[in-house]
Amino acid sequence: MAWRSAVSIDPVASDDRRTDFADTITMIDPGAPAVLIGDLSAQRGDGIFESLGVVDGHVQEVGPHLARLAHSAGLCDLPAPNLAQWRAAIERIAVEAGPGENVIKLILSRGLDQGPAPTAWVTLATAPDSARARRDGVRVVTLDRGYTLDVPARAPWLLLGAKTLSYATNMAAIREAHRRGADDAVFATSDGFVLEAPTASVVLRVGDRFVTPAPQAGILHGTTQLSLFAHLETRGFDTAYENVPIADLETADAAWLLSSVRLAAPIASVDGRDKSIDRALTAEINAYLLAPRD
Amino acid sequence: MAWRSAVSIDPVASDDRRTDFADTITMIDPGAPAVLIGDLSAQRGDGIFESLGVVDGHVQEVGPHLARLAHSAGLCDLPAPNLAQWRAAIERIAVEAGPGENVIKLILSRGLDQGPAPTAWVTLATAPDSARARRDGVRVVTLDRGYTLDVPARAPWLLLGAKTLSYATNMAAIREAHRRGADDAVFATSDGFVLEAPTASVVLRVGDRFVTPAPQAGILHGTTQLSLFAHLETRGFDTAYENVPIADLETADAAWLLSSVRLAAPIASVDGRDKSIDRALTAEINAYLLAPRD
Repeated sequence: MAWRSAVSIDPVASDDRRTDFADTITMIDPGAPAVLIGDLSAQRGDGIFESLGVVDGHVQEVGPHLARLAHSAGLCDLPAPNLAQWRAAIERIAVEAGPGENVIKLILSRGLDQGPAPTAWVTLATAPDSARARRDGVRVVTLDRGYTLDVPARAPWLLLGAKTLSYATNMAAIREAHRRGADDAVFATSDGFVLEAPTASVVLRVGDRFVTPAPQAGILHGTTQLSLFAHLETRGFDTAYENVPIADLETADAAWLLSSVRLAAPIASVDGRDKSIDRALTAEINAYLLAPRD
Repeated sequence: MAWRSAVSIDPVASDDRRTDFADTITMIDPGAPAVLIGDLSAQRGDGIFESLGVVDGHVQEVGPHLARLAHSAGLCDLPAPNLAQWRAAIERIAVEAGPGENVIKLILSRGLDQGPAPTAWVTLATAPDSARARRDGVRVVTLDRGYTLDVPARAPWLLLGAKTLSYATNMAAIREAHRRGADDAVFATSDGFVLEAPTASVVLRVGDRFVTPAPQAGILHGTTQLSLFAHLETRGFDTAYENVPIADLETADAAWLLSSVRLAAPIASVDGRDKSIDRALTAEINAYLLAPRD
């Protein structure tokens, strides 16, 4: 992803008394070095992030993404982000987006080791073309995430529900999927339950019921999945958070990977076995997800 | 850690025909921005690193650290580092070290997303003062790492034996240890075996035998532990790699955390229960570790 625009945020100035956040936001050149070599984002993957879709200049779901940023900050013992300041930074960079699909990424790093404050920036890039994945779907392989369903609750230091910058394993899982001739991975627990994809949520349709793995299993609560469930409920469908056995991925009437930028990608095969795609419903879901959402 | 000096490496130039690596190494100002905001080190914790001790200008164990860097690169599907080039960069920055204890850190990042090449740099900082930890020891708490002993072999995409930049969990474990009134953590498997500390290896003494957890358990093979075992063997002690039950941490005659910069820190308590320190042996071990080693 080539970042076209970027702003840095000065979180030190983000105290509650301050109302003019414009002063604490600085446009920076994404093609020029902007991060200190000692920044803990680059040294330790020690920070958190969010990726937001932008469609024709409208930033999707700013509130839910900022809420999740704050949730991740809490799990990681980072200072609570000043959401009004982040919102101002998003608005500032969204001006540069123009028509079509773009992606805005928020990064909150712990800053320098024993430094005075975290560092933060917001970047904008043209979104990759997802037309084919949305239409023809993605082939997935299931990969063991290495822990059982009960681990996240008893070991919060594993940060399993936080969207941290430590994504080396997520990236390795996607490379492993490619090695196996697939497009993407779906993580599962060692005791056989579906978790999430490395950068997406998993949603299954079983009859008129839509199901996604419960976030308590140490996965990210997907903003796009949340938004889709709200939409499906207005359409009269049942939605549920459940423990989803791996076998359900294959037996479900349909399944999707959902994320903020690629949106709904139907699952076209699981571990090499084809799965039928509901093209009409997928198109309708993506039309909903591409419309302005807040 | 405040980085005093830094060099960047141009890995694109690191082909086998090139012998003059000086041209591919550039001194950079660690106090000025040097990393692009899109670098995958900062975006995804997607890269690998090594930390080397420097004592009175002598860089310890360069060969073993470079071998481990190459091992991590292989696990992460990164291009094999040109070790002669890295060695030249280490020699260049070691000139700046001066007397006393310093630390050199090597970082190899995947570079820009879909960019042409990885990025790499080497930094130098004054080492933190470890005198107290080496003499009086560290209080540790055991923390569940969330997986069982058999997971690393069957799930290589978890990168459990690679020294990646995705260290958010390691840092969270140290914060959890501090919250519990301890100095450091010792990770254990969910089925009850000792693994490693977030930034150190664990070594136990039982009689005249020194034992450390087997690296096959998805832990880093410690360069300092390797060096110490070679030394102990010349002194006539037995050494062994084994599966170490958590209870052995308490019952062992002595135990240490071993790392490249802090060196040997005796474990003074485990989960709140005091453990005796072998001060004479610890002092002798640290004298050995502080002497020039290659």
